[in-house]
Amino acid sequence: MRQSAILLINCPDAKGLVASVSGFLYEHGANILSADEHRDDASERFFMRIEWDVADFRLDPAAFPAAFESQVARRFGMDWRVEYSQRPMRVAVFVSKYLHCLADLLYRHQTGELAADIRLIVSNHEDARRHAEFHGIPFEYVPVGPGGKAEAEARALKLLDEQEIDLVVLARYMQVLSPEFVERYEGRVINVHHSFLPAFSGAKPYHAAFARGVKLIGATAHYVTEILDDGPIIDQEVIRVSHRDQLEELIQKGRDAERMVLSRAVRWHLEHRVLLCGRKTVVFE
Amino acid sequence: MRQSAILLINCPDAKGLVASVSGFLYEHGANILSADEHRDDASERFFMRIEWDVADFRLDPAAFPAAFESQVARRFGMDWRVEYSQRPMRVAVFVSKYLHCLADLLYRHQTGELAADIRLIVSNHEDARRHAEFHGIPFEYVPVGPGGKAEAEARALKLLDEQEIDLVVLARYMQVLSPEFVERYEGRVINVHHSFLPAFSGAKPYHAAFARGVKLIGATAHYVTEILDDGPIIDQEVIRVSHRDQLEELIQKGRDAERMVLSRAVRWHLEHRVLLCGRKTVVFE
Amino acid sequence: MRQSAILLINCPDAKGLVASVSGFLYEHGANILSADEHRDDASERFFMRIEWDVADFRLDPAAFPAAFESQVARRFGMDWRVEYSQRPMRVAVFVSKYLHCLADLLYRHQTGELAADIRLIVSNHEDARRHAEFHGIPFEYVPVGPGGKAEAEARALKLLDEQEIDLVVLARYMQVLSPEFVERYEGRVINVHHSFLPAFSGAKPYHAAFARGVKLIGATAHYVTEILDDGPIIDQEVIRVSHRDQLEELIQKGRDAERMVLSRAVRWHLEHRVLLCGRKTVVFE
Amino acid sequence: MRQSAILLINCPDAKGLVASVSGFLYEHGANILSADEHRDDASERFFMRIEWDVADFRLDPAAFPAAFESQVARRFGMDWRVEYSQRPMRVAVFVSKYLHCLADLLYRHQTGELAADIRLIVSNHEDARRHAEFHGIPFEYVPVGPGGKAEAEARALKLLDEQEIDLVVLARYMQVLSPEFVERYEGRVINVHHSFLPAFSGAKPYHAAFARGVKLIGATAHYVTEILDDGPIIDQEVIRVSHRDQLEELIQKGRDAERMVLSRAVRWHLEHRVLLCGRKTVVFE
Repeated sequence: MRQSAILLINCPDAKGLVASVSGFLYEHGANILSADEHRDDASERFFMRIEWDVADFRLDPAAFPAAFESQVARRFGMDWRVEYSQRPMRVAVFVSKYLHCLADLLYRHQTGELAADIRLIVSNHEDARRHAEFHGIPFEYVPVGPGGKAEAEARALKLLDEQEIDLVVLARYMQVLSPEFVERYEGRVINVHHSFLPAFSGAKPYHAAFARGVKLIGATAHYVTEILDDGPIIDQEVIRVSHRDQLEELIQKGRDAERMVLSRAVRWHLEHRVLLCGRKTVVFE
Repeated sequence: MRQSAILLINCPDAKGLVASVSGFLYEHGANILSADEHRDDASERFFMRIEWDVADFRLDPAAFPAAFESQVARRFGMDWRVEYSQRPMRVAVFVSKYLHCLADLLYRHQTGELAADIRLIVSNHEDARRHAEFHGIPFEYVPVGPGGKAEAEARALKLLDEQEIDLVVLARYMQVLSPEFVERYEGRVINVHHSFLPAFSGAKPYHAAFARGVKLIGATAHYVTEILDDGPIIDQEVIRVSHRDQLEELIQKGRDAERMVLSRAVRWHLEHRVLLCGRKTVVFE
Repeated sequence: MRQSAILLINCPDAKGLVASVSGFLYEHGANILSADEHRDDASERFFMRIEWDVADFRLDPAAFPAAFESQVARRFGMDWRVEYSQRPMRVAVFVSKYLHCLADLLYRHQTGELAADIRLIVSNHEDARRHAEFHGIPFEYVPVGPGGKAEAEARALKLLDEQEIDLVVLARYMQVLSPEFVERYEGRVINVHHSFLPAFSGAKPYHAAFARGVKLIGATAHYVTEILDDGPIIDQEVIRVSHRDQLEELIQKGRDAERMVLSRAVRWHLEHRVLLCGRKTVVFE
Repeated sequence: MRQSAILLINCPDAKGLVASVSGFLYEHGANILSADEHRDDASERFFMRIEWDVADFRLDPAAFPAAFESQVARRFGMDWRVEYSQRPMRVAVFVSKYLHCLADLLYRHQTGELAADIRLIVSNHEDARRHAEFHGIPFEYVPVGPGGKAEAEARALKLLDEQEIDLVVLARYMQVLSPEFVERYEGRVINVHHSFLPAFSGAKPYHAAFARGVKLIGATAHYVTEILDDGPIIDQEVIRVSHRDQLEELIQKGRDAERMVLSRAVRWHLEHRVLLCGRKTVVFE
């Protein structure tokens, strides 16, 4: 596997951005593998993802930040970060009783589709333990009793700290996270909601969709923010249903949409392809 | 072209329904071409669409109602109606300034995809007149001035009466119909809304979808009821969009979804494939 | 769970078919749950699937065949069979080294989506053993050494006999079955081919699709016949790809199409929704 | 409308490509609007499309070629060209008796979706004349009598010459072009084939697809080469069909796939988003 570095930039649009960044990389010996740019007309901001082979690159990870900041980033007022493929993200998956999304993520992890270091599966139920063990991933049972939510969350946060988790995936985790949790992991918690947001936000979306008589059933992967089901959307998927589908079939079909949409969103995040742009996302597929 | 009759039934579920209906048809010489049934578990009602070749059928349209009512329908408490393919529906299309849905319907009508007798195009603008003339369909300009809505609607209703219109298609008609109009043509007005309902109901759905950052843009064809954008859904369609799509591209892509979904819904209605089931539809494709 | 019976009919089209079948069922107390009919214009044959609640049905499985044959089937020259939901099909899954289709089938079996009695997993490799054990399903390692194909197949057939297998699913099984095997299980072996047939039949379809530069990658589930990749198609699925997808990504995306298409085809077969019509299938979804 | 220039590059991969191109553009005052890159692993070639606002750009179209060639292109062995949005492509549409693709192109042209200068509609039948006149585009009837193919083609080529046509769109034109024609307009003739290529190449693809019993019906837009239906694929689309669809319905559904796929391909070509890469295309959507 080729080792690469990925630079992510978000800054006010200006002339010379691409020339400066690519010039800087070239001077230090980078062989660019891919580059994606986007200009958001509403905010007049520029987004860039640029990936290069580190084989001949003469700036090591320790030296990169100061050099790039002084030679390029400061001048353009860039928000930026650099990631290295040799350090895969550390991931924790939170799950409750529905295991289809977890099973799909673990399967794709096993086949190498998801370049992640899954450190932890956290659940308020015991159902996922066997799956965790089958895949050799530590399982933590963190029950949420009546009035015990703050305590449970504290324990979960401690586990995330210990494992230095970069990304939390809510794979049908049926507990609402506190604002403190959300703030601390801002832009680093991905949830799958089982509807085509903004339709049917909140509880029991399949029941609501069934009652409304929709002809497509949807799922949405999004970053979690303080407002429920309102965070920036990463991906959405729908599946055709008909009058023949009773509630149970609708839930079954929806599961396929959930699995696909969450796996894609997680993969894009792991490959540093998703940038936040206000309430929206830029996804460099 | 084979001439056929289509019987549509909606009644409480009971044993012997299929046997009674098919037995009655067989006795009178029907050769069944297709039959579709659906049982709605929630309401415990049964829906049926049965189509037969009228070539050897020995009950003519005048005699059918009394015979079927006394021999079958009464016993099961059926809501029913019979339609004949030799009498295509009489259709009026209402349109404002966006002509893509109208153009698509007229094109499909011309190729024979839509077995309709389009009697009339009604618009509160002059833009559609050339299209109407190109296709040889009468065009009626019914402007809606300030305070002139009731008068305009009265004129439109008079036109519908004169032409004995069976189906009104709102092909991006930007006026809200009065409750009286809706009631009079209940289950006979199809609208296309340019969003994936129930998301983004009301005005400017593309703007709202763009602001929310959705990754799929949708369109919905539905029967019009008194409550705006709330009627039974006939069909829905979505098209993938990305951060690269600015509002204008999103509107362009959405147009394709609108055209496809409205044309399908109209076709199904014209072929008597759509039955109402409370707030939902049963679509026998 | 409601117990039901399913009658499948294939016969020359004739008047009175639906009336006779539904009349017969009604006389014996059947409450029809669903009915599907299809007339194939080319062959002028009629296909029917009719399902009823057996709760009040007065013909038991032992008495049904003689009664239906003499009272209905003989008169219309019907090919027919009846199935009972209380006897789920007995299934054997054959797999080689790629486990994604197997994993998907086992997952859906576990959630109750596939109403099957999976008796056996057969493989020419050891890779699937852990999955089989995790799901508590017997695993049989049947290696195919050089020149040992006939012997291996004999052993596989013996296993199928012992378990009274109704359906063989080839979930990326990389051995070609002998004509004798195929003939013996005619219409009862479902294979997934990793291309949009008839394009790219034979070996290495992903490589061929990549070389051709297709923009959609496909998968096909079909019944196995003597001619490779030529049997009646049950379902097909495609996934969009682009120039950015190298061979490896194309294979990854294709896996999702394979999993979905095979699971759907197997499910429809298990629910007796697939009828053969010459080289084609009628699928009563 | 913003005026822009678009630079298209195809060259052996090398370090410094992006830096050199973007540096050159920056020096001359370009404000980059978008940039897309692709590295083809098989050929080790690099593809780039870069678009900039010409408002402050200090190299006019007359001076650009020599400057870019000497300062950048020569060093990297680039195949390149530059296009200007103020000069839309000149297009000729060839059509026979099926008008759905033509109608769709003309409709999109009218709404401004296709930034083209459609100079000419050429047909071997009179059917399209009314459409051409409705849209105010010159129509040329070029019949192809028995043995008159060479003469007809000569006349068509003369028309293309006179109008300085950049792109020929075969919108269901049922004549095979001669190798001389194809060679002269290499990479500048787009055809729509009514199947999912490479399946069902050649004549009557819908009949072949119907006979094979496929469950998805497809269409392919591709550049025309000497070998029939073998040119680089620009886009493909499929639509789901079932056993209920007889040949006629399959053709109707296929028409929607044809229209969508051809319009997308033409649009991408007009916006200089398609680059040839051997037998494949790179499409910078």
